[in-house]
Amino acid sequence: MKATVLVRPKAGILDPQGNAVLTGLGHLGFNGVRTAHVGRLVELELDETDPAKARALIAAMCDQLIANPLIESYEIELEGDA
Amino acid sequence: MKATVLVRPKAGILDPQGNAVLTGLGHLGFNGVRTAHVGRLVELELDETDPAKARALIAAMCDQLIANPLIESYEIELEGDA
Repeated sequence: MKATVLVRPKAGILDPQGNAVLTGLGHLGFNGVRTAHVGRLVELELDETDPAKARALIAAMCDQLIANPLIESYEIELEGDA
Repeated sequence: MKATVLVRPKAGILDPQGNAVLTGLGHLGFNGVRTAHVGRLVELELDETDPAKARALIAAMCDQLIANPLIESYEIELEGDA
């Protein structure tokens, strides 16, 4: 089963990459950008085929390795599952 | 208008972050993971409200700053637009 994890900096947490993108876009003449935030996109392919189990497994992976729960939030999307 | 850009390493391009995630998950006992790829998630808020114009604008931003077209591909998702 394929899964996508979207990892975002939590609101209020410093986002230096997002600020760099916003500043850089301004320097290039893209002035109509209000905000920019940069996070990570993690795409996994799992042996697990049960959506509920896959979701629980990925949440454990996120808590232990993929995301830093102090400063990041994550969202799990499973292919073919809402 | 809010937009999300998904930046992924192109197929066949070295993905050291993805390899690190895969190896790290194995060390933690998560053995049912076949592949792992790590890209970037860029969330933008634009003044532009026309979807077609916003898409063209973001594509220009990606080509010039957000993605490295040599090694990365990008996908643009506009909020409320398929």
